[in-house]
Amino acid sequence: MSTVYGGIDAGGTKFICAVGNSLDDLRAETQFPTTTPTETIGRVISFFREQQEQEALTAIGIGSFGPVDTNPISSTYGHITTTPKPGWAQTDLVGMIQDALGIPVVLDTDVNAAALGEHRWGAGQGLDSFIYLTVGTGIGGGGIMNSQLMHGLIHPEMGHIRIPHDRNIDPYPGLCPYHGDCLEGLASGPAIEARWGQSPETLPAAHPAWSLEAYYLAVGLVNFICTLSPQRIIVGGGVMGQPQLLPLVRENVQRLLNGYVRTPQIEEEIDKYIVLPHLGKRAGLLGAIELVHILRCGKTDAGK
Amino acid sequence: MSTVYGGIDAGGTKFICAVGNSLDDLRAETQFPTTTPTETIGRVISFFREQQEQEALTAIGIGSFGPVDTNPISSTYGHITTTPKPGWAQTDLVGMIQDALGIPVVLDTDVNAAALGEHRWGAGQGLDSFIYLTVGTGIGGGGIMNSQLMHGLIHPEMGHIRIPHDRNIDPYPGLCPYHGDCLEGLASGPAIEARWGQSPETLPAAHPAWSLEAYYLAVGLVNFICTLSPQRIIVGGGVMGQPQLLPLVRENVQRLLNGYVRTPQIEEEIDKYIVLPHLGKRAGLLGAIELVHILRCGKTDAGK
Repeated sequence: MSTVYGGIDAGGTKFICAVGNSLDDLRAETQFPTTTPTETIGRVISFFREQQEQEALTAIGIGSFGPVDTNPISSTYGHITTTPKPGWAQTDLVGMIQDALGIPVVLDTDVNAAALGEHRWGAGQGLDSFIYLTVGTGIGGGGIMNSQLMHGLIHPEMGHIRIPHDRNIDPYPGLCPYHGDCLEGLASGPAIEARWGQSPETLPAAHPAWSLEAYYLAVGLVNFICTLSPQRIIVGGGVMGQPQLLPLVRENVQRLLNGYVRTPQIEEEIDKYIVLPHLGKRAGLLGAIELVHILRCGKTDAGK
Repeated sequence: MSTVYGGIDAGGTKFICAVGNSLDDLRAETQFPTTTPTETIGRVISFFREQQEQEALTAIGIGSFGPVDTNPISSTYGHITTTPKPGWAQTDLVGMIQDALGIPVVLDTDVNAAALGEHRWGAGQGLDSFIYLTVGTGIGGGGIMNSQLMHGLIHPEMGHIRIPHDRNIDPYPGLCPYHGDCLEGLASGPAIEARWGQSPETLPAAHPAWSLEAYYLAVGLVNFICTLSPQRIIVGGGVMGQPQLLPLVRENVQRLLNGYVRTPQIEEEIDKYIVLPHLGKRAGLLGAIELVHILRCGKTDAGK
């Protein structure tokens, strides 16, 4: 019997679901907005039930917004925990889907899933240590360290680091309900929109919003470089869709590091060091499918 | 023939050397101040030559201040690279000692060595992921992630993350020659001394220096928690010798995280989550010896 996986990219704005096994075998893809847990998870279940009528699914992988409980031996494994997203805190995402469909469901963070997709098929191939950062509705980071997904105590929450914030230059107080002006509070898509009074997509490339955004993101990346020393940084998410932004981020990273981390990757080839995802918006969905694969087949060999 | 290792804790202020194999077998320990490379490395060589007259040494491990090149296949492996410490940039620490003594010499950062010592015999036993931070002449961090020492592109330089710095509260500009008011620039021992005009050891426990120091260190730890999600944080170094400091750091970490990282380790048992080294000042020396052991015997099983 063939093995067919389901994948869910469970984002704070929309959910994407598909079945398949790899980059070249992905089908029946669908997406819908993230509304209430009951409605959204109901649509997930309906979609996969329809698929199950056509062929048996082996298991489903989820890359989810969070924070989520990713510890397989925890009693709340697969729950979304303290998310600021209204209605979603303490939602048993894995349990609800698993119970309805009768097949195993595994979960990691959206960013770890995206990192895994990029490790297997994209910009992280062959690397032992890299991070994947998303800059969109929120800011989050995950990645591979010493050839395994980053977990630890729970999982990284890279968007919530504290960074310098000069209120003389930028009086906007930040929008994180937990921390105010953490990185996510200052530099997520909604923070840009709230600060400038218009959606990021409508701000022209020469608008001062972008140099400020590039500075905040670069401080974040500098802190991740100093903390983790990743071999590469992949930056995705809706805000990075602005083509003028990434070159500004790279310039700011070099300026802020100021020659201290002296490597050709940063000093000479930063265009290959800080990059966009190669899988674009499908990194998370593909990574969710790869997540099932590695959890069934062993943890450390993706992308090798 | 018995196996005897040498260990060197190569600090920016002093060098400690010893021979032995473990926590319970450490002998002929000596220490001297870090002066010029020629004089300091000369004393290292003299010490180990004397030891070699009594018994054959198998290899030597070094935990060094840095930045250092820890990549064994690099042409500058074992060099101190861009350190702000006068005279020491581009010093071939491994090569000079190896050539003089005729035995293999291996090197990692001082903080990775200390982490390794704590992993094998101290506060990091049994953990897959933890960090070791030192707060003294400089601020540096290393650790174990997914059961292996942290390396990546080069190695972490945790002291150089950027943190919020309100110049209305603290007008001191910071002393890092590369970054000014990075974490090390604001919170290292010399920064405390320069800000308040007296040595940290002489500042009374109730002096406002300590609440400011605790705040800066806590912001650093919060950023490391959000970036790495370590299972524990071990904080050593001379500045942590102030007994009033660690409780203040823990309080600030909880306040700054503000319930976002909801785990019993942080919310209920932070006294066991942010801890002093169990090996005290000998973590680095013991870790240097353990470094030889794991590099000769395989990388990932220390402390298991």
